[in-house]
Amino acid sequence: MSALQDHYPDDVAHCFGCGHLNQHGHHFQSEWDGDETVARFTPQPFHTAFPGYVYGGLIASLIDCHGIGTAAAAAARAQGIDIEQSGLPRYVTASLKVDYLAPTPLGPELVARGRVKEIGERKVIVEVTLTADGVACARGEVIAVRMPESMRRR
Amino acid sequence: MSALQDHYPDDVAHCFGCGHLNQHGHHFQSEWDGDETVARFTPQPFHTAFPGYVYGGLIASLIDCHGIGTAAAAAARAQGIDIEQSGLPRYVTASLKVDYLAPTPLGPELVARGRVKEIGERKVIVEVTLTADGVACARGEVIAVRMPESMRRR
Repeated sequence: MSALQDHYPDDVAHCFGCGHLNQHGHHFQSEWDGDETVARFTPQPFHTAFPGYVYGGLIASLIDCHGIGTAAAAAARAQGIDIEQSGLPRYVTASLKVDYLAPTPLGPELVARGRVKEIGERKVIVEVTLTADGVACARGEVIAVRMPESMRRR
Repeated sequence: MSALQDHYPDDVAHCFGCGHLNQHGHHFQSEWDGDETVARFTPQPFHTAFPGYVYGGLIASLIDCHGIGTAAAAAARAQGIDIEQSGLPRYVTASLKVDYLAPTPLGPELVARGRVKEIGERKVIVEVTLTADGVACARGEVIAVRMPESMRRR
């Protein structure tokens, strides 16, 4: 199964976090899991906060990209858009909030699960929980809005 | 003038965002500017959200590290700690909130300015504004808490 982010149109697929056309990026990948979404990512040894723990900025980045991908996929579902045919609509982050619940151990795969809290015409709110070895380490909320066409450089 | 982050003790100076001992990291650097702090950072061409704009996860990372550095430096000042002698105390992020006010152009230097909103025994709250070419593009709030000694691996 391909990742949601593989369906971003090529002119907007360069995100450092999740763009499949960014050669230097993290390549976060999200997919549907029933009514939720999931993204799995194993940090590199140098993605440290302190020795033994994952950098909080990487966690924020994963929550951001997974939240935006979830918002876009949920909007497509709600509007009956076939992303295989039409691509995934592009959303941007209006607001990102992350609560760090526990230090995140560096080593295990991180699992981010997304759930749509609110979906409107232009705005989607997504909640994300992040676990490592089954322990909840962070909880995030992403307010996503449809990308203005004026941001697009074709 | 050396950066605040240069004063983190060597055993906790590996942060991917701002640790001077992380060979792969961003090396964000903060310094005092009167009662405020400032960090300047020019993103790489691949730090994109979409072509022409800075990745939001990088902005969140800069706000996080600058907020934590500001919290630590403010705590040191309040407690009369000479960081040249004793090093900078280490704080961790309890909560990070970023509002993206405007798309951040990729190219110009980003300037993050920090201001202490609240300082207590264990918790410091820092507000950060981020500008590019003088335009405010993001506003953040970092809730920083003193790093538990149990997180330290000597």
